[in-house]
Amino acid sequence: MGNDNIIVSTRIRLARNVNGLPFPHKLAEQPARQIVDSVEKALSPIDRFTRYDMSGISQLESTLLREKHLVSPDLVKECPYGAALISADENVSVMVNEEDHIREQVILSGLSLDQAYDRINRIDDILSKKVDFAFDGRYGYLTACATNVGTGMRASVMMFLPALTINNMIESCINDVGRLNMTVRGVYGEGSKAEGYLYQISNQHTLGLKESEILDSVKAAINHIAEAELHARKLLMRDESELKDRILRAWGIVTNAYKLSTAEAMQLLAMIRLGGYYGYFAIKDYDDFQRLVTDCQPASILRRGGAADADGRDVLRARYVSSALGGLCVKKI
Amino acid sequence: MGNDNIIVSTRIRLARNVNGLPFPHKLAEQPARQIVDSVEKALSPIDRFTRYDMSGISQLESTLLREKHLVSPDLVKECPYGAALISADENVSVMVNEEDHIREQVILSGLSLDQAYDRINRIDDILSKKVDFAFDGRYGYLTACATNVGTGMRASVMMFLPALTINNMIESCINDVGRLNMTVRGVYGEGSKAEGYLYQISNQHTLGLKESEILDSVKAAINHIAEAELHARKLLMRDESELKDRILRAWGIVTNAYKLSTAEAMQLLAMIRLGGYYGYFAIKDYDDFQRLVTDCQPASILRRGGAADADGRDVLRARYVSSALGGLCVKKI
Repeated sequence: MGNDNIIVSTRIRLARNVNGLPFPHKLAEQPARQIVDSVEKALSPIDRFTRYDMSGISQLESTLLREKHLVSPDLVKECPYGAALISADENVSVMVNEEDHIREQVILSGLSLDQAYDRINRIDDILSKKVDFAFDGRYGYLTACATNVGTGMRASVMMFLPALTINNMIESCINDVGRLNMTVRGVYGEGSKAEGYLYQISNQHTLGLKESEILDSVKAAINHIAEAELHARKLLMRDESELKDRILRAWGIVTNAYKLSTAEAMQLLAMIRLGGYYGYFAIKDYDDFQRLVTDCQPASILRRGGAADADGRDVLRARYVSSALGGLCVKKI
Repeated sequence: MGNDNIIVSTRIRLARNVNGLPFPHKLAEQPARQIVDSVEKALSPIDRFTRYDMSGISQLESTLLREKHLVSPDLVKECPYGAALISADENVSVMVNEEDHIREQVILSGLSLDQAYDRINRIDDILSKKVDFAFDGRYGYLTACATNVGTGMRASVMMFLPALTINNMIESCINDVGRLNMTVRGVYGEGSKAEGYLYQISNQHTLGLKESEILDSVKAAINHIAEAELHARKLLMRDESELKDRILRAWGIVTNAYKLSTAEAMQLLAMIRLGGYYGYFAIKDYDDFQRLVTDCQPASILRRGGAADADGRDVLRARYVSSALGGLCVKKI
């Protein structure tokens, strides 16, 4: 099948706001801090959550959280009273005082829309008992941006789409799912220039839709794209010697280079992941493989070594990726 | 230091013609064949020589001889009665009916001008007893081209000059030795675009010079260039991480690629040879390493496998180079 090679992870987030308070960009410090406190308190019975106040952590720490998709770039850069509460397993992150007062988020590996929805629902239930959410009988949950009004839910799936990208079929695929109320963007980089061939597919708006309808339409879009990707992977096999050469060279470079930039490491790892699909490599665990992609990002590398400059970081990255890959992946041809 | 990495091989040839006969391009078939017969007969007591008549061998065979530098491209293409007599160890080749009636050639590995001269002298002595050479008391040996008149000797050394090439210092180095009556050309490709960074340095003309003077001037030029190359290799170390990265990637590609063109194989092997100089690799034997460069050439690869097209040949080449390199070279870092 190959779905585990194509579908990387699932994320659901709910946007919520506190009744009777201005939205965060107009909110004063004291009430903003109070929201963080009350969310922290409400979450404490569920799990061990760590609190990160954006104003109180280093740039390295906040970049690390961003690289893991646990906080948004906006929370780090634009929100003076922004905070995040993150579960020990890093599957749950609740951002406070971003665009909305509260953004609950669950990330799970693979295609896990129903499981993610169950989990976020339980969190939302508990929070709703301690926090007075702004809710309108006719419109649903009220949010800072109109596209989130209603369920406040965005369901997104990260997909690995190398063959559609290489064959220049990704644009038409993006157009197809656009008609299904879906939006596609590169996880790293933008649009068709997605680094590492990683794309995020998510519902575009929520107003007038039930949660189950959103989930169904995301599932339909994902199935459509996954089938297109599988077809494109068959097309790539028409010039198998070219494909094999490209993939094997990626392996040769990643396991031997003295330096690797983030973008190049992502590109080479993507080719190896694709090689896993064709049986050129045995990849033990795709979640671990994806973690390696995250661990290639600048702050993650910086945390491992003490390299002062970009060149030194590239040397550390090459060493790290090569050794980590050794435990994850075996060349079969 | 490092001379075995820089100096690949030494070649000396003597141009001779038979008294009273027109030069080859005006020579009829019968006398042309008679020269081949008499040279073959004269050589037989010295060693076991194999005779190749260009008109009687396949294109694959003649290309193989050319790739090993045992015959000239002209002998293969332009000389209807051309032939070569080649010793069992392939160190001696006597071409007949090329530009001159007889061209005696000795190739030895490394810097071996004196040894090569001794060997060619013994061959020339024996031939001169059976063949009546065209010789003029005032000018010396008479040859088809005026630049060879006199000793008829050309001494050339094949040098591996990657650092001078990468640093764009090769042109000025060529100009320097041009003043010393030397000529420099790429062994594969031409001029400064020499593939595999391999250059042939040889004396430009012979008239009015004694053999020992030619040898001395070639030695002086070689020393000058080798010193310049060593200096350029030190300069490359100023950006060691860049250099190391380039060399280690070459290793990664050559040991993993599914296909390799001749030009790319030569380029990658050249980087690995340079890596041997810096201690990144232990290269067991530079002669064997150089044989690998010859064995990458199209006809040599074709002889090993039965690939019908260039793409198939590139696949065979990649497999061959990678496995041969395994026995020749060990990565040290």
